[in-house]
Amino acid sequence: MNINGKHYHTIWLKENDPKTIQIIDQRLLPFKFKTQDLKTIEDAFTAIKEMWVRGAPLIGVTAAYGLYLGLLGLNDTENLDQKITDLSRYLESSRPTAVNLKYAIDLILEKIKSAKSLNEKIKIAFETANQLKADEIENCRLIGENGFPLIEKISKTKNGETVNILTHCNAGWLACVDYGTATAPIYLAHEKGINIHVWVDETRPRNQGARLTAFELDQQGIPHTVIADNTGGLLMQKGMVDMVIVGSDRTSANGDVANKIGTYLKALAAFDNRIPFYAALPLSTIDWGINDGVKEIPIEQRDEEEVKYVEGWHNNKITKVRIMPENSPVVNYGFDVTPAKYVTALITEKGVCNANKKDIEHFKK
Amino acid sequence: MNINGKHYHTIWLKENDPKTIQIIDQRLLPFKFKTQDLKTIEDAFTAIKEMWVRGAPLIGVTAAYGLYLGLLGLNDTENLDQKITDLSRYLESSRPTAVNLKYAIDLILEKIKSAKSLNEKIKIAFETANQLKADEIENCRLIGENGFPLIEKISKTKNGETVNILTHCNAGWLACVDYGTATAPIYLAHEKGINIHVWVDETRPRNQGARLTAFELDQQGIPHTVIADNTGGLLMQKGMVDMVIVGSDRTSANGDVANKIGTYLKALAAFDNRIPFYAALPLSTIDWGINDGVKEIPIEQRDEEEVKYVEGWHNNKITKVRIMPENSPVVNYGFDVTPAKYVTALITEKGVCNANKKDIEHFKK
Repeated sequence: MNINGKHYHTIWLKENDPKTIQIIDQRLLPFKFKTQDLKTIEDAFTAIKEMWVRGAPLIGVTAAYGLYLGLLGLNDTENLDQKITDLSRYLESSRPTAVNLKYAIDLILEKIKSAKSLNEKIKIAFETANQLKADEIENCRLIGENGFPLIEKISKTKNGETVNILTHCNAGWLACVDYGTATAPIYLAHEKGINIHVWVDETRPRNQGARLTAFELDQQGIPHTVIADNTGGLLMQKGMVDMVIVGSDRTSANGDVANKIGTYLKALAAFDNRIPFYAALPLSTIDWGINDGVKEIPIEQRDEEEVKYVEGWHNNKITKVRIMPENSPVVNYGFDVTPAKYVTALITEKGVCNANKKDIEHFKK
Repeated sequence: MNINGKHYHTIWLKENDPKTIQIIDQRLLPFKFKTQDLKTIEDAFTAIKEMWVRGAPLIGVTAAYGLYLGLLGLNDTENLDQKITDLSRYLESSRPTAVNLKYAIDLILEKIKSAKSLNEKIKIAFETANQLKADEIENCRLIGENGFPLIEKISKTKNGETVNILTHCNAGWLACVDYGTATAPIYLAHEKGINIHVWVDETRPRNQGARLTAFELDQQGIPHTVIADNTGGLLMQKGMVDMVIVGSDRTSANGDVANKIGTYLKALAAFDNRIPFYAALPLSTIDWGINDGVKEIPIEQRDEEEVKYVEGWHNNKITKVRIMPENSPVVNYGFDVTPAKYVTALITEKGVCNANKKDIEHFKK
């Protein structure tokens, strides 16, 4: 998608230099646009750990290129297997709970296993990382294609009047490589000339909605309005929301959707006001071993500081302000689980399906 | 209630100087505790307009004392009635939408109407302001008495284990004169030795929960935890909330509750998880002329800056940081309306009643 009118992916090979990977330093968005060069596996480790890149698909692709950079950095081939194992473990430790991180690393390890020389392993790792990136883009593109008719239908019902879509957090292209998941149908609808407007939940505590989703939509020229997370219910009551589209971090086999904390509250409000609520997700987020997401999906607890302080732009730099008493305790849960009964449908790269075990299983290979 | 171990009201007469009113400068809380002297009607005007004081009951009492200060400042009695009308209009314009402001001023105007001399009017205005303050305290105390058994009952059901209460925004003593509304039963339960713990919604955009409710509870030594507004649903799903108590800015005759934006979302989650949801309110907030709160109660739109910027403490001063793209639009609705069907009961100074027209009318004089 676009930044300052130029097309970007979230990660790419430096022009004329396939030994350097470039990324957008997302910590500075939306205040400042800055790219970073990753030349070593240590650079990739830092980019993942310090959240220069974030979002499951992007973390996976960054890890794949990171391992490739690690192989490039090996200068003798004694104990090669051990060295590769060490590199992998090091990279995995950058964000231990990120499933896509481990998936990407394992994928490369599997592919390079039978290659005999380091050079051959490097070549395969590079190709695998490129392919993983291409697959992520294609999945998002297909989610867009499959979700688009849902927007188009509402637009027709409203005789072309603006379709108001509410989204929570950033399931946008910045979390992926291009298009995004929840945003893919939105971008496609805009491209096809459908009148849309997006309500962007700011998404405390990290404000990824206000910072990243609003930035994406602004750069793409899509009408949008940022709201406090408390506001969605009122807008739905007042008939100002036609549909909700969110992403998913993990989806149970029965269709329960784990997504950024607060998603469940919006799903309840959508249900109460008979507004369709969609989760857009690559099938890789479905955890086939879990049949009751509400009971079984563990909920990550994050740093208290994210609630206690708010980060923003002040005097031309990122500044954190404390918003509560120094001594008051805090808890910071990363996501919640929306029960399948409140999910109108799942939008995947293979098509749209109802949020129940039987329908989801049609997509299982 | 207490601040730094000393008992305070939110507004009081200066010791040995009944011509000076003192208040807490609430703009600086919880970061700094500072009192302000109000010596003129202009001081009271500024205190209300610039939100040194906030909360409907406290605004009312401040206005009452403000008009008293205005009368004190009159030094000749020519055209006295006109001068008093001018003072009243001036004071009313400090926050035109605050119902309690107008109520307090009208009350004093009515009481002083028949008094002949300025001195007599001053005396009556002073007594009326004192009485209004005493009434506000007594109403909150009674709300506490009436709400307490609801907490006690849950405590007994749990065999004395901690009762977890979720509250939204600040319906605490800082919004009133003492005790608060939603907090009154909480303070009483704590005083009576019941084990309680309060989940405090930070309450974006103005963060009155994180700033004021957390401060109140911290100062009172009541166990509490601050959470992002997105978190309540998850906590309820996980069985970590036993009851919800919120305040009300306006209640329709059929029991719909207008309160700080986001209240409705918490009510939906409470309903979905079979958790009792109470609104604590003085009967003065009931609008007997409105029978469908969701349709009829107008929703105030506030300044965009409150969403776009977050105010907090940085380098030992109040600092605002921008949390989103400069150009993205914002809307900022002040409150929402929770339909009566999601309200378990109303806690008032006259007792607890179901949120329906028939039961509420028993409390109508």
